[in-house]
Amino acid sequence: MSVTVITYAVIMVRWEPDARGRLGKAAFELFLERGFEQVTVAEIAERAGLTERTFFRYFADKREVLFAGSEAFQALFVSSVENAPESAAPIDAVAAALYVQATQFMEHPAAVRRRQAIIAAHPELRERELIKLATVAAAVADTLRRRGVGEPAASLTAEAGMAVFRIAFERWIADPDGPDLDQVIRESLDELKAVATGRAAVTGK
Amino acid sequence: MSVTVITYAVIMVRWEPDARGRLGKAAFELFLERGFEQVTVAEIAERAGLTERTFFRYFADKREVLFAGSEAFQALFVSSVENAPESAAPIDAVAAALYVQATQFMEHPAAVRRRQAIIAAHPELRERELIKLATVAAAVADTLRRRGVGEPAASLTAEAGMAVFRIAFERWIADPDGPDLDQVIRESLDELKAVATGRAAVTGK
Repeated sequence: MSVTVITYAVIMVRWEPDARGRLGKAAFELFLERGFEQVTVAEIAERAGLTERTFFRYFADKREVLFAGSEAFQALFVSSVENAPESAAPIDAVAAALYVQATQFMEHPAAVRRRQAIIAAHPELRERELIKLATVAAAVADTLRRRGVGEPAASLTAEAGMAVFRIAFERWIADPDGPDLDQVIRESLDELKAVATGRAAVTGK
Repeated sequence: MSVTVITYAVIMVRWEPDARGRLGKAAFELFLERGFEQVTVAEIAERAGLTERTFFRYFADKREVLFAGSEAFQALFVSSVENAPESAAPIDAVAAALYVQATQFMEHPAAVRRRQAIIAAHPELRERELIKLATVAAAVADTLRRRGVGEPAASLTAEAGMAVFRIAFERWIADPDGPDLDQVIRESLDELKAVATGRAAVTGK
C-alpha cells in the first residue's frame, strides 16, 4: 500500500516539475511585459509549457499568482510577534517582526520590486494589497492580545507597526540605491515615536 | 431669461422634493430590514416613492448610497488639518481633524451607528470602507506635506492618525453606553504615544 503511494508521488513530480513555480515565473514575466490586464491565463499556461487546467489547480485566477505568498507573509509576522521575548514591549515585538520580514524581502529584492511594480500599476491590485496588509494588522493585533496586551494598545501597535512597514517599504521601493529595508524600517520606527509624541519637525513651507 | 431659469428651478424642486434624501433614507431602512445583498434599486426607489431612473440620477449603484458622504468626509479632514495653527505639531493638526469629525458624528449618532451596522455585516462594504479611509489618509499626508512636514513624518502621522480614528470609532460603536467619541479618540491618541514609545503595558496573560 505505502509503496503504491510513494510511486504515485514520484510520477506526479516527474509529470509537472515545479508547475507552481513555472506558472508564477511565466505570469510575472507576462504581467511586466504587457500589463496585468492584457494577460490571459491561457497565455500564462502556454509560456510555462503547461495547460490552463494545471494553472487552475494552483491558482483561482491570475490575480492570485501575485498574492500566493499572502498566507506565508502573514504567518511570518504572527510567528515573529509570538516568538519575541516575553518581556518585550508590544512595539518591540512588532518591530522584531518587521525586521524578520525585511530580511526575507532583502534575500530576493529584484523579485519583490518586480511584484511591486505590477501591483503599483493597477488600482485593483493596490486595493487587494491594502486589504492583505489590513488582514495582517488584524492578525498581529490578535497575537498581541494573546501575549496579554490590552485594547486599544494591541490594535494601535499593530496598525502603527503595519503603517511603518508600508511606508518604509514604499520608500525602499522608490530608492533602489538607497539604504536597506531594515535600515529604512529602523528610521521609520524612530520617526513614528517622534510624530506620536509631537516631536516631528515642521521643516518650513 | 433669468426669470425662466428661476421658474424651472422651482418646478424641479416641487417635482422631486429632496429625492436624494428620500432615496438615502429608503435604502438605509431596507438594508437594515433585509440585508444589503437582498435589496434592489427598484425596491429602494419604490419605498422612496420615486423611479429607478431618478435613483440613478443620484447614485451609481446601491453601494454608493452608503458612500455618498465620502467626499465631504475627506474634505472635512483635509480642511481641518489645513486650518490647524501653523505652529501645531503634525500629530496635533491631525488630532484636531479627528475631533472635528467626531463632533460631526456625534450630531447624529444613531445614523452613524445604523450605517456602520450595514457596513460591518458585509465584507465587500468593509473593504470599500477600508479603501475610503486609506484614501483619506493619503489626502491628509498630502495636506501635511503642504504644511511643510517632511517624509516619512507626513505619511506616518496621517496613517497613525487614521488608525487612531478607526480604532476609536470601533470602540465607540461597540459600546453605545460608553464615553463620547471625542473622549475615546483622546484616550487612543494618548495610548498611541504610549505604544510608540514602548510604554504600553503588557497587562499579563
